Order: sequence, then structure tokens, then C-alpha cells
Amino acid sequence: MPKYKLTISYDGSAYVGWQIQPNGTSIQGLLEEALSTLLKTQTRVIGAGRTDAGVHALRQAAHFVSEQECDTSLLLRSMNGMLPHDIRVLELELVLDTFHAQYSAGGKEYHYHLWLGPIVTPFVRLYRHQVTFPLDLELLRRAAQEFVGTHDFATFANLGSSVKTTVRNIKRIDVVEQEGGVRLEFEGNGFLYKMVRNIVGTLIEVASGKREWHEIRALLAAKDRRAGGIAAPARGLCLMHVKYENLECAKTHSPKL
Amino acid sequence: MPKYKLTISYDGSAYVGWQIQPNGTSIQGLLEEALSTLLKTQTRVIGAGRTDAGVHALRQAAHFVSEQECDTSLLLRSMNGMLPHDIRVLELELVLDTFHAQYSAGGKEYHYHLWLGPIVTPFVRLYRHQVTFPLDLELLRRAAQEFVGTHDFATFANLGSSVKTTVRNIKRIDVVEQEGGVRLEFEGNGFLYKMVRNIVGTLIEVASGKREWHEIRALLAAKDRRAGGIAAPARGLCLMHVKYENLECAKTHSPKL
Repeated sequence: MPKYKLTISYDGSAYVGWQIQPNGTSIQGLLEEALSTLLKTQTRVIGAGRTDAGVHALRQAAHFVSEQECDTSLLLRSMNGMLPHDIRVLELELVLDTFHAQYSAGGKEYHYHLWLGPIVTPFVRLYRHQVTFPLDLELLRRAAQEFVGTHDFATFANLGSSVKTTVRNIKRIDVVEQEGGVRLEFEGNGFLYKMVRNIVGTLIEVASGKREWHEIRALLAAKDRRAGGIAAPARGLCLMHVKYENLECAKTHSPKL
Repeated sequence: MPKYKLTISYDGSAYVGWQIQPNGTSIQGLLEEALSTLLKTQTRVIGAGRTDAGVHALRQAAHFVSEQECDTSLLLRSMNGMLPHDIRVLELELVLDTFHAQYSAGGKEYHYHLWLGPIVTPFVRLYRHQVTFPLDLELLRRAAQEFVGTHDFATFANLGSSVKTTVRNIKRIDVVEQEGGVRLEFEGNGFLYKMVRNIVGTLIEVASGKREWHEIRALLAAKDRRAGGIAAPARGLCLMHVKYENLECAKTHSPKL
């Protein structure tokens, strides 16, 4: 049965998160509803990973299996016709049977946006976390480097997902100045539940003088969530993209029927 | 009695417009409510001009008169504490008695944002008008130039405001390419009710081949709203700023009490 990859962009403000939950509307739920209606059969959508309530995505990835070959261009337009405007399917492509949105993912990039001025512009209010006390950006940069590399991130992972290991590799954390504040760019092979927000929370503590940057090594060594800082709010976080190695080669083409 | 100038930014999506109206929540209404509560007396807020339901403002201007001298920095913060996050007071300053937000205004700048791609990114969905048919940008630019200069804009003004004259001067209309489409920058000494949206509607008709650019001169000469094109939607429009000549000189300083 043909398998399709979805690339989806969403403003997470109105949702309980990516994953279907009993307590509200989820992005996964709306995608499954649209696809099940259009394909006339119950269709499951598997995401590259879940994002929490209020977290956004520029390019989330997912896959689904269809009983029949689809007209991808028509299906994409039909899905966008059914979905609310804060969720858009950007791409829909046929992939090899071996593709899996979660297991084939080679890495992810997240951006966390901090607003450092006194007044948040209305137009970005849903996409920035405002910090009203002064932050030392040099300390922020220094502290961020402590997280780069391969570490056991148990201190920075909330319970809520069953994972084999809490060891992850963070390739880079860049602190980039932008209008109104800074953007923290996280790139890594994978992130645990609430890991980016927990790290950002700790970085804010360091940059505001509540913690020393050299304590971070001990925090990581503790492997205890209770040792870590509080999570930064969801609104500042955006999943930028999910990386798949050799996806181009894996892509198959529609046979002419 | 001391007079104050407000600079206000708002996302107009949730409002019936700038002006107080019986049928819903207005930006002017919320500002008056906040000021009246904080100053403990009914306070009127006079805007530089009204913006329609769904129209946004980066820097709208307004003024109010207070019975007593205010601590501007404290008042600004208190107002923002009471207002919803889609309305922010950016500046609050003491001005001369002679200042009037509407009558002292020397000019305004509006931007109209067109999205020309097939899928509008969720993050700008409230600030773009999507055009799904092809537009000829050269025709758009050519047609825009027909509106530049001093003209009687009666054809492009909706009823709804009592004005002495429908003659206005448009200093420039620039068509600037940006992510996902183009931005039409309008600068002029003043704009009539729905004038920018009516002009944009006509420009879209020309750029999509429904009208010829050289018809515009006759449309202006007709001085009849029925001759003009339909208004482009509110969501694409943003009041960028209101210009005041010599405001710096007019500004007074708090006397030490």
C-alpha cells in the first residue's frame, strides 16, 4: 500500500498539541479527520514526534498509508480546504515503504524565541516568550555551550514518553539576535519530552544570574529532573524542520496507471 | 489641562475596528475603558483616524486630555497591564495643548500585504490577503502610478465619513517584493474611508487582466464609487505610522511639581 509523507506548518496556540488527546483538539486529530474523510477510510497519521500544547511548527513531518494511490496535488489542496487556516499542509509526497516519520528522522531543528524588550509587538505575541528582567547574553551563550555534545539529558526530560535512552546529541545551540530579542537555535539528533523548553528555562536562570553556568555539568550528571530549571513557556518554541537522510533517493514516483 | 499623545500597535483581527460601535469591541473603546479606570474619570481618546474591522496598526496615534499631570511611564505600563495582548501602547508622551491626533496629522503610511503563493504560512495568515490567480507585477506597478499625485478620490471612497473634500494627495505607492508575495506601500497626506482597500481592489483587477491600467484616469474622473473596483479585504492592511510635523518642538516637558 502506498505511503505518503506530509510536511505540515502550524500555529499551535489553539491546540492541545500534536498528539490526539481526550481533552481537546489536536493537530494529529484534525489531519486524521481530514484524510479519513477524503480517503473514505479511517487513516492514521504518524508524526516525527509530538509537540506540546502551544508549540508551533514551521515544518513538522508525518506519514500515512493509503489503500490506493492518491493524486497528491489534489489531496494536498483538499486537505487544506478542510483544515483550519492555522494548520497548512505544505507538501505531500509518495515515499518508499521503508520510510517512517519518526524512526527515519535523522535530526531536528527547534528555535526558541525570547522577547527582551518591555512591550511585545501584537503581531508576534503568540510566538515569543517575554523576559522582563535583564539577561546577560554572553552568559547565555556560554551556558548554552555546556549542553552541546552527547549527554544524558534525563535532568532535562519530563516523564511522559517511553524512551529506551535519555542520551541525545545536540549538534549546536546558536544564540542569534533578532528584532525584539534573541532566537536560540537548537539542532540535534533528537529531543526528549520538553527537553528544549527545560534547557531554555535553565539558560534563562543562568543569564539572569540565578545560577552559574558551570553548575550545568553537575545538573546533567544528576540525571534527575528535579535538579533542572523550570520549563520555558510553549509559545516561544517552534519546530523548524525534521531531517531525513537520503529522502530524495528513497522517494518513488507514481507509476502511470 | 495636560494633553497626551498615545502611539498604539494592534492586531485588528478580533475587533470591530478603531471606532467605538454598538455591535462589538473596538480599540478606541478598550483604550478609553483602561484610561477612565486608571485616571478615575471618564476619558475620551481621539484617534488620528479610524481603521476598519480587521485592519491592523503598527503605530496608530491618538490623544487624550487628563485633569491632572500623569506619570507617563507608570500610566503606559498600567494601560498595557489592563489591555489585551493584541493591543499595546508603545509610547505615551505629554504634548502641547495645540496638538490634535487627527487635525495635526501631516500624513500617513499604510502597507497592504498580498500573498501570491498557493499556501499561506499559518504565522502570517491574519496579515495577508491571498490572491490565488496570477498577477502581472509590472501591470500592478504601472497601474499604481496612476493614483500617485493629487486627485479627487471620490470613486475610491466609501460613504461613512463626513469630509469637506475628497481630494487627497498620494505621495508614493511602492510595490515591494517580500516573502510569499508583495507589499504595497502607500504614503499620502490623508486617506478617505476604505480608500486604500478600494485602490488595492482595483489594482488587483488590473494586474489580473480584468481591467486596463489606462482606464484608471477615467475612473478617477467619474467621481462615483460605483465605478471603482471592490475593496480588498481588511486583513491585508496595516497603518504603519502617522506623521506629525514639528512634533518634537511641540512636545512640552513635565514641570517639576
